Amino acid sequence: MYIPTLADMLVAHERIKPYIHRTPVLTSSYINDLVGAELFFKCENLQKAGAFKARGASNAVFGLSDEEAAKGVATHSSGNHGTCLSYAAGRRGIPCTVVMPRTAPQAKKDAVQGYGGRVVECEPSTSSREAVFAEVVAETGAEFVHPYNDPRVIAGQGTCSKELIEQVEGLDAMIAPIGGGGMVSGTCLTLSNLAPQIKIYAAEPDQADDAARSFRAGHIIADDAPDTVADGLKVPLKDLTWHFVQNHVTDILTCSEDEIVDAMKLIWKRMKIVMEPSSAVPLATILKNKETFAGRRVGVIITGGNVDLDKLPWQSN
Amino acid sequence: MYIPTLADMLVAHERIKPYIHRTPVLTSSYINDLVGAELFFKCENLQKAGAFKARGASNAVFGLSDEEAAKGVATHSSGNHGTCLSYAAGRRGIPCTVVMPRTAPQAKKDAVQGYGGRVVECEPSTSSREAVFAEVVAETGAEFVHPYNDPRVIAGQGTCSKELIEQVEGLDAMIAPIGGGGMVSGTCLTLSNLAPQIKIYAAEPDQADDAARSFRAGHIIADDAPDTVADGLKVPLKDLTWHFVQNHVTDILTCSEDEIVDAMKLIWKRMKIVMEPSSAVPLATILKNKETFAGRRVGVIITGGNVDLDKLPWQSN
Repeated sequence: MYIPTLADMLVAHERIKPYIHRTPVLTSSYINDLVGAELFFKCENLQKAGAFKARGASNAVFGLSDEEAAKGVATHSSGNHGTCLSYAAGRRGIPCTVVMPRTAPQAKKDAVQGYGGRVVECEPSTSSREAVFAEVVAETGAEFVHPYNDPRVIAGQGTCSKELIEQVEGLDAMIAPIGGGGMVSGTCLTLSNLAPQIKIYAAEPDQADDAARSFRAGHIIADDAPDTVADGLKVPLKDLTWHFVQNHVTDILTCSEDEIVDAMKLIWKRMKIVMEPSSAVPLATILKNKETFAGRRVGVIITGGNVDLDKLPWQSN
Repeated sequence: MYIPTLADMLVAHERIKPYIHRTPVLTSSYINDLVGAELFFKCENLQKAGAFKARGASNAVFGLSDEEAAKGVATHSSGNHGTCLSYAAGRRGIPCTVVMPRTAPQAKKDAVQGYGGRVVECEPSTSSREAVFAEVVAETGAEFVHPYNDPRVIAGQGTCSKELIEQVEGLDAMIAPIGGGGMVSGTCLTLSNLAPQIKIYAAEPDQADDAARSFRAGHIIADDAPDTVADGLKVPLKDLTWHFVQNHVTDILTCSEDEIVDAMKLIWKRMKIVMEPSSAVPLATILKNKETFAGRRVGVIITGGNVDLDKLPWQSN
């Protein structure tokens, strides 16, 4: 297992700069008053392809040799990683294949194809996904870019917190949602080296709290088919992300489905940004744990903005 | 009629800086490709109180002498101006009264009260509004701040295009929605002095096209009860805003209701920002008049983000 270093993250940032936005940091006096802390929202929903995953995907794609790149890249993801890998491959002009369950929403397939990627469907089971993915790799020789358990991806995600500490001085803490742990690991990589005084928190839905339970148990526990409105956070930790979480995270906080939806609507309403349910989990946990953050300056990573505008979660509530 | 000057706008900017955000400028490669031009969106939906009107209102409020300020400010507006005047008055710690039809949405009344302002209800008629408003002023001695036909307000709105030309070099054109013409007048004030090479366009719904008809006729024509999803744009031009429009606007472009809703959804989907229908009118007209903007660098003012999240216009379509 290769553990990415500070140097990998710094190289990643130089490499991906032409292909990503340096996203703005927004604040809301109203939310600060509500929380009793100063929150600085790093808006990766405004990132290329609508998610922070454009960072890790671009680092993986643009780090390939020309020979490797010619064969293209491949992944299995029905979420933002698939879209962002397709985006990055499109920018480099190389093929990208994304294996996705045939039951995935059409909008997700369209998003991959919109950036020039190819969607290959599998049955909605792990065995089918693995078999179909193996076929794709055997046929194309494409480089597999895992959604999070990949040092290139983690180094890329680490560029987000690097920007945030450049944009906002004197942060006491930073918080990001945790699913597989790619963003949190990148944050750990960057802050443990560049700003070890900043405490790192992760935020997770009660209904997909495998990372919180792993953290307390001291070993990885995977959930069995978790179900949450924060659909980007259903995946489990893997060895590389577990390494970072175990060594550098101060705590993993959790919250209910209703708290996620309320926090999401609060951000839309007061901050005027479109973001997905997963991105609301940090604020939901801050509102639930005000004493932990009272009077502190807290960086909050808004991870993505890809949401179905025809079906907003508070409208079915 | 006092016509505000460049000096008024520059003084306004220094005066209001502590109370407003220098809002970010966002871009979308997808939308640029669609339009065939380079668009730079100035995001006043991310402004304090959710609208550019925080600029003009803050300039009026903070320009008062202590003696005047002590009596407070008042206006009649069921839109963003009422909310923003309440915001500015709250920041100065002075009273604010907003006269509003009793039929106005509760959310609008809540917004004024949320910033500490007082709502006084009138019947939904011009005569009742005028009578009630006169009473409020007689009782309180409050300073009337008109939503747009006020030199202090126009000077304040002009700070938006000042920031935009500082943030983006080499603009060829700028476009903003037009209702009463406050933002367009502020833009004319600033650009005619600081960047006269930048052409100024205004954008208006077909169903409330009084400014476009006035512009062609050469005198103010007021609509009779216009009805449009872009509810911020129903009010007519007045003498002061007509002065700027007549002298400095290159053209006023119009579009249909469906085009407004489509452009609004496109911006939400691709740019991940929450903005109100009025703010989508410029992009709708650009999409309809691509040849006018082809290959040009265009500043687009997103005027506000105050929208009912439970009732989005594409969901009733």
